[in-house]
Amino acid sequence: MSTPVPIRPRVLSGMRPTGALHLGHYHGAIKNWLRLQDGHDCFFFVADWHALTTSHPDRDTLSRHVYDMVTDWLAAGIDPERCTLFLQSRMPEHAELFTLLAMCTPSSWLARMPSYKDQVAADPELATYGFLGYPLLQAADILLYKPAGVPVGEDQAAHVEVTREVARRFNRVYAADASVFVEPQALLTETARVPGLDGQKMSKSLDNAIAMRDAPEVTAAKIRTMPTDPQRVRRSDAGDPARCPVWPLHQIYTDAATRSACEAGCRSAGIGCLDCKQPLIEAIQREQAPWRERAAALDPQQVRWTLEVGTERARAVARKTLREVRAAMGLVA
Amino acid sequence: MSTPVPIRPRVLSGMRPTGALHLGHYHGAIKNWLRLQDGHDCFFFVADWHALTTSHPDRDTLSRHVYDMVTDWLAAGIDPERCTLFLQSRMPEHAELFTLLAMCTPSSWLARMPSYKDQVAADPELATYGFLGYPLLQAADILLYKPAGVPVGEDQAAHVEVTREVARRFNRVYAADASVFVEPQALLTETARVPGLDGQKMSKSLDNAIAMRDAPEVTAAKIRTMPTDPQRVRRSDAGDPARCPVWPLHQIYTDAATRSACEAGCRSAGIGCLDCKQPLIEAIQREQAPWRERAAALDPQQVRWTLEVGTERARAVARKTLREVRAAMGLVA
Repeated sequence: MSTPVPIRPRVLSGMRPTGALHLGHYHGAIKNWLRLQDGHDCFFFVADWHALTTSHPDRDTLSRHVYDMVTDWLAAGIDPERCTLFLQSRMPEHAELFTLLAMCTPSSWLARMPSYKDQVAADPELATYGFLGYPLLQAADILLYKPAGVPVGEDQAAHVEVTREVARRFNRVYAADASVFVEPQALLTETARVPGLDGQKMSKSLDNAIAMRDAPEVTAAKIRTMPTDPQRVRRSDAGDPARCPVWPLHQIYTDAATRSACEAGCRSAGIGCLDCKQPLIEAIQREQAPWRERAAALDPQQVRWTLEVGTERARAVARKTLREVRAAMGLVA
Repeated sequence: MSTPVPIRPRVLSGMRPTGALHLGHYHGAIKNWLRLQDGHDCFFFVADWHALTTSHPDRDTLSRHVYDMVTDWLAAGIDPERCTLFLQSRMPEHAELFTLLAMCTPSSWLARMPSYKDQVAADPELATYGFLGYPLLQAADILLYKPAGVPVGEDQAAHVEVTREVARRFNRVYAADASVFVEPQALLTETARVPGLDGQKMSKSLDNAIAMRDAPEVTAAKIRTMPTDPQRVRRSDAGDPARCPVWPLHQIYTDAATRSACEAGCRSAGIGCLDCKQPLIEAIQREQAPWRERAAALDPQQVRWTLEVGTERARAVARKTLREVRAAMGLVA
């Protein structure tokens, strides 16, 4: 007797190719993807067109960033056998659906997005048609695959809401008798906000990041040179973890016993800052070690193939949806 | 000794599928296409996505309109052996270039187009992202094929100008060392403005049109019931061609001798309005006869094939340009 294969709910998520990922990406997104891949039909894609909405990178940078990032996904344990990993820019289907959705989406829905208004106010050069349409391109990215859920941080929840509005409106205008699109749920996941080396949010552009695959000595050097409690000038001064940018990293990386010992030592000036940093350095290095190992075992050609195979798998799904969309709009089959 | 094949300059033009074409389309555009196909490498396409920017036709209407229109092209003598006839909605390449050009095109260039501002002011429902982007989609339609010229009426000249700006900007942002796009010339062609049955511009939506393939008796009935000089109430009243909506059709269709006889007869009440209309009816019927014959000889399946073959021919050109665009933007090859 054969057991029926349980249907795994589909989720979809994309990431802009910013090159080698850092610990903030890992704890903010990838760790959640790893959890999801066990029980879900995961579609994860490289949003390289989106990278072009806000910058015009050098000609060689973008594709290097794509492969560096996918290498990090695989190094972290994302399993291409269970997940569909694909590249947005090789999917003209996304551009086609974007173009078609545009026909029934009011521009005002896009112009009122806080992400657009605030960024254009800060940099008028960003006021391009593409940047205005960024949430609509994202709606196309999502709706093509009819996912049940889209894992997002709170700052992206408004974008999923627009996607739902776009889907609803398309269904109403073109598919009154049978819905074409499914409204996806935003899967709000609680993720750790990883502070960077300067205490601000870890970010490549702030140059305060520890890369997922930084060598052990690089990680050590970065943590060792981190500023600590500015009021603990001398080794003999007592410190306060609440003022120390290293402390939030301890919350993420070390166990309660270690933290308690470090806190006591800091407050009593019983230990120096390097003593406090050492268990943190070791914990980060332990996390990084398997990533570095897996990445070292990856053939660059294999990374390319993985993405190509995933892209063709995604295309089969996207094409099916597009056929339904074209039929609903009355376009030639 | 082989003679080199002369390089024919490429021209590109598109037409929205409004269904069966009328005499206004023929004299306003198709006649010019017929002239162009002798010495040019002509790309003529059905702009069915553009039709969706301003209306949401019934599900069955759009594709019927596509084939009716292409049938009229072929009936008029457009030669698919010499011209590349293709269907926009089967070219995801157009959507992809549209999406990519969006990344460096300021929205303000689009929002300031008179065609957009005026129409949205008249109908706020039109304020969609797609309608705003219509001149940019048109730029993509054009630039993919690097045509030397784009035959347009004066009302479309502003759109070709935006296309040139978009091309220039893309070249500057992404291709400083080697231009990807060629700036096309607007080929302003003097075309006859064909009046409709009510004296306004001939237009399907005004229900004042004579279709290219109207049957002889339909054409005759339409002309016979046309209003004439409103001051010529009785047969015995003298008329004035300057006040008669039939007269401008004479300018297009009949020869100087006929016109001179009709004018004299009208001013002297020597002839009735039906007498004046008869040579016009015959001239239009003479023009229509070969169209109807050619159309009758066309197998609908043949029309489909013609469009499919042309679409694949266009795709080969479009893909080559897209490869250059992707390389210039640094996207994965």
